[in-house]
Amino acid sequence: MQPLPGFRDLYPGDFARRNYLTSRWRETARRYGFVEFDGPTLEPTDLYRKKNSGGEILGQLYEFTDKGERDVSLRPEVTPTLARMIAARHRDFPKPLRWFNVGTCFRYERQQRGRLREFLQFNCDLVGDASPAADAEVVALLIDLLRSFGLTEQDFAIRLSDRSAWQSFMSGHGVPQEKAGEFLQIVDRMEKMPEEKTAALLAPFGVALATVKDFIEKAEIPALEPLLSDLEARGLRSFVRPDLGVVRGLAYYTGVVFEAFALHGGLRAIAGGGRYDRLLSDLSDGQADLPAVGFGMGDAVLLELLGECPSAKAREEAALKADAAVQLYLVIASEEHRAEALGLAQLLRESGWRVAYPLAEEKVGKQFGTAESSGATHAIVVGSEWPTLKVKRLADRHEESVPKDSILAWLANTRS
Amino acid sequence: MQPLPGFRDLYPGDFARRNYLTSRWRETARRYGFVEFDGPTLEPTDLYRKKNSGGEILGQLYEFTDKGERDVSLRPEVTPTLARMIAARHRDFPKPLRWFNVGTCFRYERQQRGRLREFLQFNCDLVGDASPAADAEVVALLIDLLRSFGLTEQDFAIRLSDRSAWQSFMSGHGVPQEKAGEFLQIVDRMEKMPEEKTAALLAPFGVALATVKDFIEKAEIPALEPLLSDLEARGLRSFVRPDLGVVRGLAYYTGVVFEAFALHGGLRAIAGGGRYDRLLSDLSDGQADLPAVGFGMGDAVLLELLGECPSAKAREEAALKADAAVQLYLVIASEEHRAEALGLAQLLRESGWRVAYPLAEEKVGKQFGTAESSGATHAIVVGSEWPTLKVKRLADRHEESVPKDSILAWLANTRS
Repeated sequence: MQPLPGFRDLYPGDFARRNYLTSRWRETARRYGFVEFDGPTLEPTDLYRKKNSGGEILGQLYEFTDKGERDVSLRPEVTPTLARMIAARHRDFPKPLRWFNVGTCFRYERQQRGRLREFLQFNCDLVGDASPAADAEVVALLIDLLRSFGLTEQDFAIRLSDRSAWQSFMSGHGVPQEKAGEFLQIVDRMEKMPEEKTAALLAPFGVALATVKDFIEKAEIPALEPLLSDLEARGLRSFVRPDLGVVRGLAYYTGVVFEAFALHGGLRAIAGGGRYDRLLSDLSDGQADLPAVGFGMGDAVLLELLGECPSAKAREEAALKADAAVQLYLVIASEEHRAEALGLAQLLRESGWRVAYPLAEEKVGKQFGTAESSGATHAIVVGSEWPTLKVKRLADRHEESVPKDSILAWLANTRS
Repeated sequence: MQPLPGFRDLYPGDFARRNYLTSRWRETARRYGFVEFDGPTLEPTDLYRKKNSGGEILGQLYEFTDKGERDVSLRPEVTPTLARMIAARHRDFPKPLRWFNVGTCFRYERQQRGRLREFLQFNCDLVGDASPAADAEVVALLIDLLRSFGLTEQDFAIRLSDRSAWQSFMSGHGVPQEKAGEFLQIVDRMEKMPEEKTAALLAPFGVALATVKDFIEKAEIPALEPLLSDLEARGLRSFVRPDLGVVRGLAYYTGVVFEAFALHGGLRAIAGGGRYDRLLSDLSDGQADLPAVGFGMGDAVLLELLGECPSAKAREEAALKADAAVQLYLVIASEEHRAEALGLAQLLRESGWRVAYPLAEEKVGKQFGTAESSGATHAIVVGSEWPTLKVKRLADRHEESVPKDSILAWLANTRS
């Protein structure tokens, strides 16, 4: 029996990698004063039908009728839940809200490499402040997040754009307001499309491809200036590139939009976001009329990227090694001392050490083998010399005798 | 718009409490050398239909047909997924496996206090060792887990029993093997049932209530001796009580069974588990014929209990306070120094501090108010004295001047 197509069994090694990812997500968000929230995995389908951010998502819902005859769906994204939660209680919290979520989402997508039907998403939203200072906090958070994995200016960049520049372009070139979403989707996809195709799609708007390319190349985005000087003050200016070629597909963005992308191995997007000052109001029927800026990222592309960048890979490997399942392995050299070994295991575990020992009698050599493969840094031998312990550093087999009563102090000392 | 009945919106304060819980779960399991795994939230319904642990669960499934015409269900428990994963790859891992999972599960239960339809569960399983030494590891883990919340011998105990004692009883009293499950369910519920009702249910088995009560009171469980001496060696003997009145409802247990329960405010069960040496083989059609012992616990009863025990409550509150959203609040005393404040925020965050500052110009008094309500321990004033900072400890308003270049060292010093 297999998991469903598009779903994953996470064995301990896979989970440790995911945990490395989510720990960095959480840690970085918290350095920026963000707090975590979560909502239900299953929601009334109406929450997604009501206002939806892109037509595609509705067709990919895991939707069904529950035993109480309710039309329900597994969440395809977390933003509608966030909007409901903020609408219900935003008066209880001082503004701006800095909220993040790490959660699984579900979309019935066509099966292809890297596309999962259950995937993990990180969402960060700063709600209740419409200023470029808020935009800068969120973009800086995204930069520091990627840096926390050991990724550098050589590995990624943030392309920054602004919907207002495109709004001016569209009104200047006679694109009607109700067609704006459609027009922007064409621009969003033009990098991945043959020029003739883009030109054909633009034709009904009466806009020439050359005009659009020219506008993008001129790259004048005055609205971005305050955001850029803010990032300059933080020393993060070099990570961002103003680029009108980024528009983001979603219809609801109103101001700055941005995309983190990998600089080698194809321009894969790692994360994307922007300002959406009307969405919360729309989703909550006006109950939460709050400006907001945020971004989302999934786990799949990022994990792929970490594997490809040597410095990031080395950092991940070091972190996983430091996080090994076992730190200390107790070798029980004579079975008569099992009770003492159990007492010692208890003492060490109560001090926070990750400890293992053989559950049954085993040859000492085999125990050392287990100790080494467990990832432990030290083996502690409990045997005839009790209450003196032999402590062996497994990396270089250096050995010391340590009285049982001073083992905690001795270990605290090696740790630091 | 509301969440579905039985589902929860976790606002940041609720999430922080849940996080306190899951952190202790993870930390304690890891001290025992356990590693985390996870599986899909959605599974083929056959996984649950095949062999099921209790009749009840199948009737409570969130079951539907997906867009690919597959019969699928939200997981009501994690054990069948564990069995599948172990069956597929157990040869890749040295035995015993020490695996744990923290995951949401879904059951369409009748709505009542404390019963949720989406709930968080912690599962710990030690697989591949049939000895009492393995039972002891798992029971000790459960005890240390509850102690990690500040719960003591006055707050909880573990009732220990053994299915083999009941097997002898049943064969000695002519209960046919195929009726064993039914008989044990009656015993499992007798504490909560009027005596006459239990007596009536036992009548068809030809066993008098007095005989059963007598057997329980005599409390002779020789099979538990090795487990009890193991716990004695760890100094944990006083937390457990041999008690044949515990049998656990699930049919699949084969040896020791146990239950952690609260000692005040009604004998609520906090966690339960036992040895199940045939389940993995049954669930995997013999592909993983491995003995196992484990337990599970939910978040709801435990959270309730922590609120009721003063020492546990105090520990939780201290942990939540130490984990406040913001540690350092930058007060921008003059707007001309905003760029310097941004640079300082970056420096502090890069050193791991959780930092906030006002996104727009604000009166200094208001900024101090925000600093205090944010949970920060210190306010750092950036103003006309730059590059000298004024650092105010918010608890007692003690103030010091610190040059910007030594702020990191100064803070590291206060922390320790």
